[in-house]
Amino acid sequence: MNSEFDIIRRYFTRPSRRALLGVGDDAAIITCRTGMDLVASTDTLVADRHFFAHTDPANLGHKSLAVNLSDMAAMGATPRWVMLSLTIPRELAQDDAWLNAFSSGFFTLADQFDVELIGGDTTCGPLNIGVQIMGEIQHGRALKRSTAVAGDDIWVSGELGNAALALGYLRRKIVLTPQEAQACLSHLDKPVPRVGLGQQLQKLASSAIDISDGLLADLGHILRSSGIGAKVDFERIPCSSALRKKLMPGHLERKLAMDCLLAGGDDYELCFTAAANNHEALVQLSQQSNIQLSCIGEIVTGDGLTLSTVAGVPIHHERKGHDHFLA
Amino acid sequence: MNSEFDIIRRYFTRPSRRALLGVGDDAAIITCRTGMDLVASTDTLVADRHFFAHTDPANLGHKSLAVNLSDMAAMGATPRWVMLSLTIPRELAQDDAWLNAFSSGFFTLADQFDVELIGGDTTCGPLNIGVQIMGEIQHGRALKRSTAVAGDDIWVSGELGNAALALGYLRRKIVLTPQEAQACLSHLDKPVPRVGLGQQLQKLASSAIDISDGLLADLGHILRSSGIGAKVDFERIPCSSALRKKLMPGHLERKLAMDCLLAGGDDYELCFTAAANNHEALVQLSQQSNIQLSCIGEIVTGDGLTLSTVAGVPIHHERKGHDHFLA
Repeated sequence: MNSEFDIIRRYFTRPSRRALLGVGDDAAIITCRTGMDLVASTDTLVADRHFFAHTDPANLGHKSLAVNLSDMAAMGATPRWVMLSLTIPRELAQDDAWLNAFSSGFFTLADQFDVELIGGDTTCGPLNIGVQIMGEIQHGRALKRSTAVAGDDIWVSGELGNAALALGYLRRKIVLTPQEAQACLSHLDKPVPRVGLGQQLQKLASSAIDISDGLLADLGHILRSSGIGAKVDFERIPCSSALRKKLMPGHLERKLAMDCLLAGGDDYELCFTAAANNHEALVQLSQQSNIQLSCIGEIVTGDGLTLSTVAGVPIHHERKGHDHFLA
Repeated sequence: MNSEFDIIRRYFTRPSRRALLGVGDDAAIITCRTGMDLVASTDTLVADRHFFAHTDPANLGHKSLAVNLSDMAAMGATPRWVMLSLTIPRELAQDDAWLNAFSSGFFTLADQFDVELIGGDTTCGPLNIGVQIMGEIQHGRALKRSTAVAGDDIWVSGELGNAALALGYLRRKIVLTPQEAQACLSHLDKPVPRVGLGQQLQKLASSAIDISDGLLADLGHILRSSGIGAKVDFERIPCSSALRKKLMPGHLERKLAMDCLLAGGDDYELCFTAAANNHEALVQLSQQSNIQLSCIGEIVTGDGLTLSTVAGVPIHHERKGHDHFLA
C-alpha cells in the first residue's frame, strides 16, 4: 500500500538544486536574486473537465506543467520552481504504473525547462491536479495584459485551433483524416509552452497573454485590461491546413471550425501586441526562432473587437471562449 | 449566471497592496527584499475528506487559509501572499451566499495576518480548495525539521486532540457535554495558526513542525529528518479537561481519546525542539504571549519514539497519525 508519504518519496522527491530547501518540510525556501521580480501563477486541471479521465498519464503530467509554463511565457518570465498539489482517487494512489507515467511526463518537461519541483501536497479525492509555478524576471520587465496601446499590431504565435479540433474529433463532432488527427492530438495532449519566445518578447511586445480560453476571450482580456479595442483580420489568423479547409464558405463543418479557431482554447500560443515599428524585428525573430509569428490586426481606440475579412466584411461569432461555468 | 470571471471579480479581487501585480493577469508579480528568503507552501482541502460538504462556508474559507498560515508558522516565516485554486461544483458557482461567506471567512483571516490574495484559478469540478502561500524570512533563519539534536527538549503549543475530539463527536463516536462540544468544535472549524509564536521561536527553537497529522506522525517527521529519536512523557502532553477525563485508565472511550491526543491531526499547534538552556526563555515566552507551551520530552540518540508514563511505564499506541490513503 502506498501511503501519502510513500507517493511523495517514490515519485516526487528529487534533490533540490537551486532551492535552499525542497520537498519534505512544512514549506520550501528559495532565494530571489537582487534586482529580480518573482512571478507566480497557478493552474489546475480537473478530470472530465480539462481532460478525459482515461488520458495517458504521461501526457497528463506533461500538460499539467505545460499550462503553467505557458503562464510564465505570457509574462516573459523564466520559470524556476513548481509545487504540485495532487488530489488522486484511492485506486490511483495504488497504481504504480499510473504514478510512474504521470511523474515521468511531469519531470521530463520540467527538465527540459530546467524547472525544479520544490513542494506540494498529496491528498485523496476526485482527480484534481494543481500546479503552482514561480519564475524570475528582471524588475519591471514583465509583460502584462494592461499595457497595449492604440496603433500597436496584434500578433499570435503558431497556429490556433488545433487542440479544439482534436477535441471535436475525439467527441466525434468533427471528421479528420488519420494524419490530421495525429497532428492535432499532439497539440491537445502535449502542448509546447512558448517560454523562450516569451522571454524574447520582453523588449518587443507591449502586452501579452497566453491563449488558453480561445483567441477572442484572451485577446478580450488584453482589450479590457488596457481599455482599448481591436480590429482583427479573420484570414490572417494562422491555422493548420486541416482547419483551413473546413473554414471555406459553405463547408458543412464551418461553424465548428470557426469555434475551434476563435474560441477553442487549449492553444497555449501567445497573443501579444507590439508597436508597429517592431514589425521587422518580429519577422526576424520568427525566422531565427523558427516559430511562426502572425500579425493578425491592430489595436484601436474605443472598446470591443471587430473581426472582419481582409475585404472588410464583418464576421460575427457568438461564442467568445471557454468558460468553465457557462460551458 | 456567474461566469468564472464574474466569480473572480466579485468575490476574490481586491486592489494589491504590497504585490507589484495582483489578481487579473497571467501571473502575479512580487518583489522579495534583499536579504530575505522566500518561503512557499501549499495545502489542499478536499470535500468529504478534510471537511464535511455541508460545512459552514465562512469556516471553510477561514480554515483553508489557516492550515497554510500554519505552515508558515512552522517555518518561523511571516506570511505575505496567497493564491487560491478553487474547484467548485457548478451549483456552488451560482450560490452567491456560499461564495460570499467563503470569501468573507478567507479575507477576514487574511486581513488579520496582513496577507494578500494575489492570484489563483477558478474551475468547475468536485469541491477542492487549494491555497498556495508565500512568506518571507531573514536569509537562513527558517525553522526546519532536520535540525533537532540529541539533548534538545521537545515542546508543543496549546492543547492537542481537540479537533479530533470534535470530529469523533460529529461522527457520534464520542460523547461530549454541549459546553465541551462547543469548545472542541471551534478548534476543528476555526483553527488559530501560531504565526506569531513561530516567528518568536526563530531564535529559540532548533527545529519545528506544525501538527496537522497528529503528534506521533509529525514529531516522527522531525525524528526521521534529523536522524534522531525521542522520549515523550505521556502525561505531559497538554490536552483539554474534556479529553483528560477520557484518558483515565478504565474509561470506556480511553482508546479513542488516545487516538485524538496522539494521532488526531488537525491541531495546527506547533511541535518544536529547543536546547535545554532555552527552557527558561520559553517559559517566559509562554507567559508573555499567553500561549501554553509544554515541554513533553527530549530528543535522544538512536531512532524511534518512546512514549511512557512519567513513572516510566511504556505506552504502545498503534495508530501513528492521519494518512489520506491509508485512512
